[in-house]
Amino acid sequence: MCQIASPLSPFTWGWGFLNLEEECAMGSDYKEMWEELGLDLEAHDALLKVLGRFYGDIYLSQKGRLKGAEYLDFVLSEVHGLRINELQEAKAQGKKVVGTFCIFVPEELVWAAGGICVGLCAGADIGREAAERVLPRNTCALIKSFMGFKLARLCPFFESCDLVIGETTCDGKKKAYEILEEFAPVYVMEIPQMKEARDRILWKEEVLRLKDRVEDLTGNKITADSLSDAIKMLNARRRVLQRLDSLRKAIPTPISGRDALLVNQISFYDDPQRFTQKIGELCDELEERVARGQGVVPEDTPRVMLSGCPMAVPNWKVPYVVESSGAVIVGEESCIGVRNTRDLVSENGKDIEEMIESIVDRYMKIDCACFTPNNERIQHVVKMAKDLKVDGVIHYSLQFCDPYTIEAFKVERALEREGIPVLKIETDYAMEDVEILKNRVEAFIGTLGK
Amino acid sequence: MCQIASPLSPFTWGWGFLNLEEECAMGSDYKEMWEELGLDLEAHDALLKVLGRFYGDIYLSQKGRLKGAEYLDFVLSEVHGLRINELQEAKAQGKKVVGTFCIFVPEELVWAAGGICVGLCAGADIGREAAERVLPRNTCALIKSFMGFKLARLCPFFESCDLVIGETTCDGKKKAYEILEEFAPVYVMEIPQMKEARDRILWKEEVLRLKDRVEDLTGNKITADSLSDAIKMLNARRRVLQRLDSLRKAIPTPISGRDALLVNQISFYDDPQRFTQKIGELCDELEERVARGQGVVPEDTPRVMLSGCPMAVPNWKVPYVVESSGAVIVGEESCIGVRNTRDLVSENGKDIEEMIESIVDRYMKIDCACFTPNNERIQHVVKMAKDLKVDGVIHYSLQFCDPYTIEAFKVERALEREGIPVLKIETDYAMEDVEILKNRVEAFIGTLGK
Repeated sequence: MCQIASPLSPFTWGWGFLNLEEECAMGSDYKEMWEELGLDLEAHDALLKVLGRFYGDIYLSQKGRLKGAEYLDFVLSEVHGLRINELQEAKAQGKKVVGTFCIFVPEELVWAAGGICVGLCAGADIGREAAERVLPRNTCALIKSFMGFKLARLCPFFESCDLVIGETTCDGKKKAYEILEEFAPVYVMEIPQMKEARDRILWKEEVLRLKDRVEDLTGNKITADSLSDAIKMLNARRRVLQRLDSLRKAIPTPISGRDALLVNQISFYDDPQRFTQKIGELCDELEERVARGQGVVPEDTPRVMLSGCPMAVPNWKVPYVVESSGAVIVGEESCIGVRNTRDLVSENGKDIEEMIESIVDRYMKIDCACFTPNNERIQHVVKMAKDLKVDGVIHYSLQFCDPYTIEAFKVERALEREGIPVLKIETDYAMEDVEILKNRVEAFIGTLGK
Repeated sequence: MCQIASPLSPFTWGWGFLNLEEECAMGSDYKEMWEELGLDLEAHDALLKVLGRFYGDIYLSQKGRLKGAEYLDFVLSEVHGLRINELQEAKAQGKKVVGTFCIFVPEELVWAAGGICVGLCAGADIGREAAERVLPRNTCALIKSFMGFKLARLCPFFESCDLVIGETTCDGKKKAYEILEEFAPVYVMEIPQMKEARDRILWKEEVLRLKDRVEDLTGNKITADSLSDAIKMLNARRRVLQRLDSLRKAIPTPISGRDALLVNQISFYDDPQRFTQKIGELCDELEERVARGQGVVPEDTPRVMLSGCPMAVPNWKVPYVVESSGAVIVGEESCIGVRNTRDLVSENGKDIEEMIESIVDRYMKIDCACFTPNNERIQHVVKMAKDLKVDGVIHYSLQFCDPYTIEAFKVERALEREGIPVLKIETDYAMEDVEILKNRVEAFIGTLGK
């Protein structure tokens, strides 16, 4: 792992990394594996170099970091190395790897069928040129990113997948999967757009259809025991993330928003049991800090909550901008945040049928902006902002993401009605707007009255 | 109706019409009615003026126009006058007016319940400033237009509506309706995203839910007779449009693409029976022309088909650009075109239940890009291009319309595989890009080898 903590802003490099001559690279012992996976080695090396520098500047440079953050650093440093190696070893033993882009995919089924579920790379301005050959320029950064990672052969997770599960949560992804399936084995789940009885019926059919598909893929029948184990394993992962979120309520908050985001990001691709254990240890440490009244920032630091679109690894732009502008982030109302961890699957199901019903119920609770109406989300945002005692909310949406950019109108109004200041940001993964963002965020934080 | 046929391009005026001092205005005898409807009279007058000039230049200036086009000119000149007056008179007698934005709404139910169904204004760069107060700038022109027409109080159809029926065909509309409902009585239908058995079940529930809603609104129960009459009336409208499309296959083609588009546009708001009769007469005239071998353009004029997003009144930009660049448009693969007219509702239903099933089936055939996969559309585009013996296809999509802009990739490839040239255009309702469009279209037409 690159240990450079440059005094320069990480953004001064932009992503023009393809010609970088840095010596510092992440996990360079895996060349053979990456070659076998068909990665573009030269571009991939350059990506790891810039990711290393980026991480050094945004993460390692933080003061008073937790001991438990060593796990985060290690996982990140081995993001395309050790974890991929584990996946390859599992595949050699006949296991199947399933990739997803959305928290709507009921991972329980994949694990219960003996598969491994991983979130796929979609948080960097990578392979944009390749992506724009098959997608309109006006497509959201997340979609261009996953297409770019695939077409530019830069994501070893993607290349390890035996199946990629998409979903119809937005127009952009729905239609992009039709193109992606020419380059990867893609299966698409239909997500309803309302939450009426008819929608639950459709969604249950989709859950059952996925069950058949993953059983087919893995060659393993899902049993009551395996499903129960998977439900418990993933609930445990959600619980530890809930515990983390709960500790962040403390004033002063014991962990930076960047680190907390990273924990959520890592939850999508590390082994769930290891993750739960390690983050449990990190939470123990945080608990001690809270007991001592020790914060990661002074007590009077403005507390900000992020709300909106997911921030996939390594999309740390806005959190960095916010936390280098004098505020601390204490919560993420996002798919890589509480939207993914708020609800558990009931563990009371006595047989497969009951467990399936519990899974159907749990996923239908997700307050994604793909639903209409989606008043639960508005209520959740307000409640969360109050619970976390935030001084302001930054609504983050990816440019061209209709569901969240349009819903931002209602979120803003609801928060303002409660007297909670809001800043709406629309951005992408490129670095051109960092200075403008910083100006806007600093001005906003300056108004928070602390 | 303004008779000016200025030698200038209509686009030199842009849409900066709010300060126009032209004397020529469409239908100025309805001031009192418009006032009662709450329109912004000054802005509305200006809109009608520019629409009149626009129409003069794009339509009235055409050579060798049909006698039957008098109906088109009359309807357009009375677009906000006589037809609105009819709606007001019907409302005075207790009838209800229902507005729609999408061909997915089963109009049959509205008419069968004694209501009147009209398409709502969404084809002009109107009220953009007002719309952008509640919608992101990066929203497609059609959505901004309907919001703009409503917020700027410029659409007498909108203001006549007792109910507006939206649908979840795209993210932009789905989320915009949540905002629109603060300003108008909105009801939203859920459109499935695939075409499997589960989707038909959901769609049938939605059709039945709409039946209840319109019965509730009008106070009239739908009967087997009234539904059968409505099915036949709307099938007759579709049949006359199919006849028109069929006549356009002739070489040389007997009617301009602009006029044919206008016929399709008018079908959304004129009285269906009058429309069917008048367009029948126009088709008789076209049939005579075809028999005489008389075309609206010379035989060797390049034949072009448009494919993609709908062109709502008064969105005539691209057709004008194409037909003033030496080509003739012979078909529209669009919601304001064959996507709306291709399929009939079976008239064999013996009772309400059977008729509902027929309606459900008919609407599920729509090959909207909201579906995944949507291979029927790709096949339809290719077949239509061959049937019409076109020299090239122009794929038209509205900027920020994910479904059609992404699907364009597959449309383009399928046509190229058949050796049919394609030009992909992404635009909006503003006039800034007209010269660029004209350059691109002229270059494309120049390559068509005629």
